[in-house]
Amino acid sequence: MAGTDSSVAITYRPSPAVILCEPQLGENIGTAARAMANFGLWDLRIVNPRDGWPNERAVAAASRADHVIEKVQVFDTVEAAVADLSLVYATTARRRDMQKEVFGPDVAGQRVISHIAAGQKAGFLFGRERWGLYNEEVALSDAIVTLPVEPAFASLNIAQAVLIIAYEWRRQTDLGAVLPFESGLADTAPREELVGLFEHLEGVLDKTGFFTTPDKRPSMVNNLRTALTRGSFSSQEIRTLRGVISSIDRRHERPNPNRQAPKAKDEAED
Amino acid sequence: MAGTDSSVAITYRPSPAVILCEPQLGENIGTAARAMANFGLWDLRIVNPRDGWPNERAVAAASRADHVIEKVQVFDTVEAAVADLSLVYATTARRRDMQKEVFGPDVAGQRVISHIAAGQKAGFLFGRERWGLYNEEVALSDAIVTLPVEPAFASLNIAQAVLIIAYEWRRQTDLGAVLPFESGLADTAPREELVGLFEHLEGVLDKTGFFTTPDKRPSMVNNLRTALTRGSFSSQEIRTLRGVISSIDRRHERPNPNRQAPKAKDEAED
Repeated sequence: MAGTDSSVAITYRPSPAVILCEPQLGENIGTAARAMANFGLWDLRIVNPRDGWPNERAVAAASRADHVIEKVQVFDTVEAAVADLSLVYATTARRRDMQKEVFGPDVAGQRVISHIAAGQKAGFLFGRERWGLYNEEVALSDAIVTLPVEPAFASLNIAQAVLIIAYEWRRQTDLGAVLPFESGLADTAPREELVGLFEHLEGVLDKTGFFTTPDKRPSMVNNLRTALTRGSFSSQEIRTLRGVISSIDRRHERPNPNRQAPKAKDEAED
Repeated sequence: MAGTDSSVAITYRPSPAVILCEPQLGENIGTAARAMANFGLWDLRIVNPRDGWPNERAVAAASRADHVIEKVQVFDTVEAAVADLSLVYATTARRRDMQKEVFGPDVAGQRVISHIAAGQKAGFLFGRERWGLYNEEVALSDAIVTLPVEPAFASLNIAQAVLIIAYEWRRQTDLGAVLPFESGLADTAPREELVGLFEHLEGVLDKTGFFTTPDKRPSMVNNLRTALTRGSFSSQEIRTLRGVISSIDRRHERPNPNRQAPKAKDEAED
């Protein structure tokens, strides 16, 4: 999905850090950076990346999330990477025999938002591609975050786990309700215009014999009006529909409608 | 993140279809299938895949989401792919000049869940890697879904967009509260055990001269008790902590503690 608005500046709001522990593949660092950038995170910390840093593959995979890549901090130990944080959550898909609270990304997002709103710093630990976080790293964390995955198919790659965590953070901040664009809906027309459409249509149908018997007409009219009301048509759409009706109604008046350009057809193409 | 429980059978619950329109790369079909499987979706439909179907690269990228790949249906047109659905949402990151409602994945998830709960079928359309959905495809949809992304960095790949949609579906179903494992927290100890710990510690500290003056003792005790109460220790943890205190307390009684194996140390390693 494209849609990036390059006229908008990147903003660096107070937001949780993402700490990747000993990632093996540069691609995963890059796609994690991209996932962070999508939802407005920017503080990426890497503990002992296998292939060193900087990493060209990470840059390529980040798909222009350069503002995240440029700010990356590299550490030798997890302890150093979380040194300035006062709330740390460990993400893991495996049960640990540890006295730790476990919750989903929604609860984690909510708690991180409160923590950061109070002026403190928070972060999420993510483990190695093959075997996740060590118990020593989980022990250093306040709680465990795990995703509500299908138990029979629980394996996410790092960037996807980062994406869900970043999404949950954003969804629950005041930014969550801000979509990149809003509904393009015009106002629904005043009811008199809708009634005008109904009467126009019903008048034409009276002439065509649509209403088979007079006693059936009222219920048929009610059903038609009910169906057409659900569309919440705008004034423009009502004009277009009236054009459609006129065009069909006049169909038999013309020997060859293709050679004419009836006004009603123009309206339908608005 | 590993963690798949292969003893659990895949379930095929009523859930929304994912329709990929003319995907170019098999990898994207595969990673989309994996993202669906993570959150329990399984109905994947592909319109005119560029490289045909079946596609080896899709299978490889699906990381064993074979149950989704095997059920894939291929169609020539979007109209055919959505023929049996009565609710269709178009996902797009670009504003369209169309009279369509626009909402986020949370609202979309909620509406799809209601629709499916009423016994009807629903699906999400996803566009081409490069330019998304055509307006004709969006026009065929009930509404537009867009993600609450950072406007300055709005580009997600298809699998990531599918992941968020699938996550929102699952989060809002009754499955959303079911995590693959729960907190391993033992019960908090009864208060008398905590008071036993306090009195043990305070008795030792009385001997060591920690409480500098008798008039400061009560407030220092309150502060210590407050800090230690916040840990909500289990009975086992309280036994361990009392072992720790005893071990330190007896430190000076022994010429070389390393050559002994005090009971308290064993407890600390439980």
